[in-house]
Amino acid sequence: MTEPFRARVGVRWSDQDLNGHVNNARVATLLEEARMAWRTHALTGYDHAASPTVVAALQLSFLRPIEFGPDVEIDVWVGRVGSKSYTLRYSGVQAGLPVLDASTVMVPVHPVRGESRPLDAEERTSLARWLIAAAPQQTHQQKGTA
Amino acid sequence: MTEPFRARVGVRWSDQDLNGHVNNARVATLLEEARMAWRTHALTGYDHAASPTVVAALQLSFLRPIEFGPDVEIDVWVGRVGSKSYTLRYSGVQAGLPVLDASTVMVPVHPVRGESRPLDAEERTSLARWLIAAAPQQTHQQKGTA
Amino acid sequence: MTEPFRARVGVRWSDQDLNGHVNNARVATLLEEARMAWRTHALTGYDHAASPTVVAALQLSFLRPIEFGPDVEIDVWVGRVGSKSYTLRYSGVQAGLPVLDASTVMVPVHPVRGESRPLDAEERTSLARWLIAAAPQQTHQQKGTA
Amino acid sequence: MTEPFRARVGVRWSDQDLNGHVNNARVATLLEEARMAWRTHALTGYDHAASPTVVAALQLSFLRPIEFGPDVEIDVWVGRVGSKSYTLRYSGVQAGLPVLDASTVMVPVHPVRGESRPLDAEERTSLARWLIAAAPQQTHQQKGTA
Repeated sequence: MTEPFRARVGVRWSDQDLNGHVNNARVATLLEEARMAWRTHALTGYDHAASPTVVAALQLSFLRPIEFGPDVEIDVWVGRVGSKSYTLRYSGVQAGLPVLDASTVMVPVHPVRGESRPLDAEERTSLARWLIAAAPQQTHQQKGTA
Repeated sequence: MTEPFRARVGVRWSDQDLNGHVNNARVATLLEEARMAWRTHALTGYDHAASPTVVAALQLSFLRPIEFGPDVEIDVWVGRVGSKSYTLRYSGVQAGLPVLDASTVMVPVHPVRGESRPLDAEERTSLARWLIAAAPQQTHQQKGTA
Repeated sequence: MTEPFRARVGVRWSDQDLNGHVNNARVATLLEEARMAWRTHALTGYDHAASPTVVAALQLSFLRPIEFGPDVEIDVWVGRVGSKSYTLRYSGVQAGLPVLDASTVMVPVHPVRGESRPLDAEERTSLARWLIAAAPQQTHQQKGTA
Repeated sequence: MTEPFRARVGVRWSDQDLNGHVNNARVATLLEEARMAWRTHALTGYDHAASPTVVAALQLSFLRPIEFGPDVEIDVWVGRVGSKSYTLRYSGVQAGLPVLDASTVMVPVHPVRGESRPLDAEERTSLARWLIAAAPQQTHQQKGTA
């Protein structure tokens, strides 16, 4: 697989905070929507109901303010598959301009007991279809604030 | 300054998602509440209204699920002061157990034009009071998911 | 004008609460999205920026649980135009089934001082285009819980 | 029982919207927090886990804007007990000034099938302890917008 999954995520008026842009925490919700779209539409061959997955870590770079305006296009792909977790990467664009780069470490857990568990062969195969090791996001990466 | 600022942040019932714990994006809101408490109560000698500050990057490690239950105690301190940005660090505990480690890169912007601007001497002095270079959070740090 | 304005509003995964349906407070956000779409796309001949409007009252009947699934289609129309306020009415359908009936009392306020002010002639003309006095929502209305 | 239950509910910075006050939908969340506090601390003699309750209707009058500031004190009481539902009433004050009057129609449902069911004798007894038929809220009631 060489192309990421692309999700279109709508912005709500109330996502804006007093600064007049989408609130930083709400951007994590936009990522979640993109991730859920990927899980539902792209991660086939996988029993989601039997496989709840929790976010163990989140990294998010805000490249430009997100406006209450056009949908945000968020590319989602797998950056790493480990034994008990995997990393999703995200790159978001609004109105043609990069607005975010992000990653989340995802950990599958037991549906009742909530304990972490190893990824099984079926899951690894599904995830491998979306694996892009050389991150395209690097072209968008934040230039760094001194 | 050697002690972080401690904020107590309440959890709301609707912060929980279908997994029965506080939603990952909502944890970023809990951080924001801790940061606002720090700005309001601790960051003295600083004209906040003239100095809006935006979040340029967010890093968040979820050490344990946060429950709808006791308040989360979030320690806030300054980890770095740069020329045009500074880094806040956070360490959160609920019911005596570590639940999160986090950091945000904060960038002061012009109140009207929104452009980044250098930190002035007054701001640097205020921030220096909360600077703890050797991060106490490392004792809580996520052990890493394989 | 005899047809209401129809907005399509997306449901987010995190709109669901522990009961597995869209949270009651979040439904008020879906109404807000429909109202904003109406203001932006339908309420022409009206200087919105000069005319902030606040919600003075909200009435909401939940006819069926809203699911994380297809968009909710929300019809919006004007039910009443008074001297200093007007009433918006809403009727929502998901997957062909009625899910909500609602109304909000809207009050235009002074952009700086925040005081209520009379509707002017231009506003009354704009609103009159969406006025439907005999409420179509009555066909959906909640049968009443004993 | 002649006194309502009083809940103290904190306001978050991100509860504010672009108008600079707590967003109307977020006020419904503050009500929910007050309701949850009442259920947990006041509604004794009642197996909550076996008795999920859904909101069938919401009525909310915004008497004054709620600010990011002191906690909102929300009084909660039972206004009516029916055969398959009951009505909760709310009256909210911030900094000594009335900010909201509200009511919600609550319907107990079967924990698995989700169907409405009659209130049993134990529930009716618990609820009766918080019944105030002559609504104290009337002293706060909205004067009406013309």
